[in-house]
Amino acid sequence: MDPEEFRRAGYAVVDWITDYWATLGQRPVTTQDPPGTVVAALPDAPPPEGEPVAAVLADLDRLVLPHLTHWQHPSFFGYFPANTSGPSVLGDLVSAGLGVQGMLWSTSPAATELETVLLDWLADLLGLPERFRSTGTGGGVIQDSASSATLVATLAALHRASRGRWRSTGLDRRYRAYTSTEGHSSIEKAARIAGLGSDGVRTVEVNPRTRALDPAALRAAIRADLAAGEVPAIVVATIGTTSTTAVDPLPEIGAICAEYGVWLHVDAAYAGSAAICPELRWTHAGLEYADSYCFDPHKWLLTGFDCDAFWVADAGELVEALTVLPEYLRNTASETGAVIDYRDWQVPLGRRFRALKLWFVLRWYGAEGLRAHVRSGVALAGGFADRVRADDRFEVVAPHPFALVCFRLVAGDEASAELLARVNGTGRVLLTHTRVAGRYTLRLAVGSPQTRPEHVDEAWHLLARTATEVLADLPAPA
Amino acid sequence: MDPEEFRRAGYAVVDWITDYWATLGQRPVTTQDPPGTVVAALPDAPPPEGEPVAAVLADLDRLVLPHLTHWQHPSFFGYFPANTSGPSVLGDLVSAGLGVQGMLWSTSPAATELETVLLDWLADLLGLPERFRSTGTGGGVIQDSASSATLVATLAALHRASRGRWRSTGLDRRYRAYTSTEGHSSIEKAARIAGLGSDGVRTVEVNPRTRALDPAALRAAIRADLAAGEVPAIVVATIGTTSTTAVDPLPEIGAICAEYGVWLHVDAAYAGSAAICPELRWTHAGLEYADSYCFDPHKWLLTGFDCDAFWVADAGELVEALTVLPEYLRNTASETGAVIDYRDWQVPLGRRFRALKLWFVLRWYGAEGLRAHVRSGVALAGGFADRVRADDRFEVVAPHPFALVCFRLVAGDEASAELLARVNGTGRVLLTHTRVAGRYTLRLAVGSPQTRPEHVDEAWHLLARTATEVLADLPAPA
Repeated sequence: MDPEEFRRAGYAVVDWITDYWATLGQRPVTTQDPPGTVVAALPDAPPPEGEPVAAVLADLDRLVLPHLTHWQHPSFFGYFPANTSGPSVLGDLVSAGLGVQGMLWSTSPAATELETVLLDWLADLLGLPERFRSTGTGGGVIQDSASSATLVATLAALHRASRGRWRSTGLDRRYRAYTSTEGHSSIEKAARIAGLGSDGVRTVEVNPRTRALDPAALRAAIRADLAAGEVPAIVVATIGTTSTTAVDPLPEIGAICAEYGVWLHVDAAYAGSAAICPELRWTHAGLEYADSYCFDPHKWLLTGFDCDAFWVADAGELVEALTVLPEYLRNTASETGAVIDYRDWQVPLGRRFRALKLWFVLRWYGAEGLRAHVRSGVALAGGFADRVRADDRFEVVAPHPFALVCFRLVAGDEASAELLARVNGTGRVLLTHTRVAGRYTLRLAVGSPQTRPEHVDEAWHLLARTATEVLADLPAPA
Repeated sequence: MDPEEFRRAGYAVVDWITDYWATLGQRPVTTQDPPGTVVAALPDAPPPEGEPVAAVLADLDRLVLPHLTHWQHPSFFGYFPANTSGPSVLGDLVSAGLGVQGMLWSTSPAATELETVLLDWLADLLGLPERFRSTGTGGGVIQDSASSATLVATLAALHRASRGRWRSTGLDRRYRAYTSTEGHSSIEKAARIAGLGSDGVRTVEVNPRTRALDPAALRAAIRADLAAGEVPAIVVATIGTTSTTAVDPLPEIGAICAEYGVWLHVDAAYAGSAAICPELRWTHAGLEYADSYCFDPHKWLLTGFDCDAFWVADAGELVEALTVLPEYLRNTASETGAVIDYRDWQVPLGRRFRALKLWFVLRWYGAEGLRAHVRSGVALAGGFADRVRADDRFEVVAPHPFALVCFRLVAGDEASAELLARVNGTGRVLLTHTRVAGRYTLRLAVGSPQTRPEHVDEAWHLLARTATEVLADLPAPA
């Protein structure tokens, strides 16, 4: 494809995306297709000869669009949002067009240096402790996801807990990771990948009302493991748990980690974005204890997946844990020690130039524009929670400091699950569910830049109307 | 950014990329800047208010472009190529614009199903064994990189070697991984991440001439470990090693793995692409023994980073090793068992719709177009090797079955290193180096779709001319 062919096809794809966004609200949020629908519609083999881009775009309309879950839809309220925005898409397009690979500083200096600066910008915006800035021993890096951030934090923690033996001899004792019963599944996955097994994760009880980790229970778990000859390696505290956005008490957790010399990783994947607003930054109290911290601009900060921002207080420790230096990667710049080679901060060797999408987003919206986006989500969620509370068939089941509201029908699990299935079945909204203290709970998360008050209103009216039907259909209590 | 603003800015970015590609060959391939150049030129903080896209594009020209290593440059011959192409960029643009997240089948069915079908298409194109197709117990998935593919293969292998205990109890014995001394650094990194430590990797001797793994040495290493009570878990064989593109003998290695019940992972990161050409598919003999296999369309198949294609013969085993199922990810489709949830095939939870860029590439070029690209690289590299051989100051130091040529000055390491530094210092080419049997060796890898015969000719003339200068400047032998 020569440059002029690219220009023409590029315009066509830009037009296609523009039309998609302009009409997105009119589509069903999800498909109701049975599995195999797309497989059955695709040919068995690639074409022997090339085809024009227009043919692929036509197939996108015919074979792909009707069979997606539209995460950018204004009525997508599921999981946590995975927002994107025009400037993010354009930054990513520049990255794809440049096609540079920033595994080493020397393999594209600007890719590394822009990333370093942007992570410092973000640290400022979020009010992170000084120790995470690249100007000292710390620094930030873009990971693909909070899962990978938790994994590399776990590895650095094992390296530290083993006093540097882990790197060469592997796991020589029983190491333990700690998180609350509400911690994300990626914490267990990281522990399993690191060879601790799921048994290596101690899930610590939470306060039944706030769903936040109970520091006394954490201390007890660490002491019990120490008494049994096991080695506490890492505590993962959560700011904004996945089920209910609970906020673990960092000051108390941090003090315990300091006392026992345990690595503290703070997973703020979803709620970290809120800290760009000073009035929502209370969640970061105690963060000065943390050895590492991450949040996902790809969740709530208008930057397309994948963009997790991860910081460590001691970059040297992380690099020591992860670096492997074969001859074919040796270069003069690395040997001076004056540059960052981000390959040593992550699992894969290669890296895309992901800083570009973040740069486009930060510059297009500016700090105030991003704050307005977060505040809009919090306000819309707050209004939704008020409506739920005002209807006595429903209850709000947990605090909602951010833009997620957890609620259920007072009538119980079966009614709540049926309500969710029916509203999602309309294709007009997507909500997802969790269990809170064992009880089936619906989650409504606001986050799309396209979501306006009328979309949240419509979701509420659909829920309220459908609740009437569900409750009427329920068998009478025995 | 509303849809019409996106359209206008999108055209501008497409124009910017078009101009970049049209003028790329006139730029220096690399920058000669000292570290910190870009950091010093960037502001200390993000803008408080938003800025137009034009301002960011101007800064791209001013602050980013002059400080990159241009991986798509026609005279980029370093490392292995990390090619991209117009259709790949466009497919990635569609992916960014849709912004869907395919962690589960249900979170975007078409994203999962298109990926499954495309990996079957690729399996056909490469002539992979039937056991890797999704129609049986196997299947393929896109990973970010071969590093991650090796890691998940290692994890599944540990799960198998522990008879299923690894998942819950972690590493309970000393497990071992095997590769040749020429295996990629990501094999040690994966072993370290998995808790085996770098000591857990046995690096097996190679045939001194071919640089391919010596099967007798592998057998001896496995037997010695078994005798010591250790558990051989995985062998990683390489098709196309990073230093010299050596091809390990799969039939012999596979038979040993079968005999001892060890997982065989085949890392064809670079050279796998060559198998789309029947005359280059000899490398795949013995692949029926493999439990897993990967190659990188993002290296030599015109698909932008990140796109590693990874297959397993038994997907159930991989999923069992990696799955964690919290309530908030439960859904009806997954519970039927009739769908693939690719989150369980990889380290991160979230996933971009990377199948789109592969789809655009396979359809734009067609199978024959891709074969022509590979054959062009092989022919250009062959022509270069002929020139090296014809100049008795140089020697070709290893077989070059693909598009990488390894060579050096007969005068020795110092002269060869100086030659590399001087040619790279011109900014007109980029080559990298390795050591072969301890001796400093230059690598010239052809792969960019923009590379034409004149670029390889120019590289040769620059090398030959600079060699004259280097040899003249060398101190006379004592």
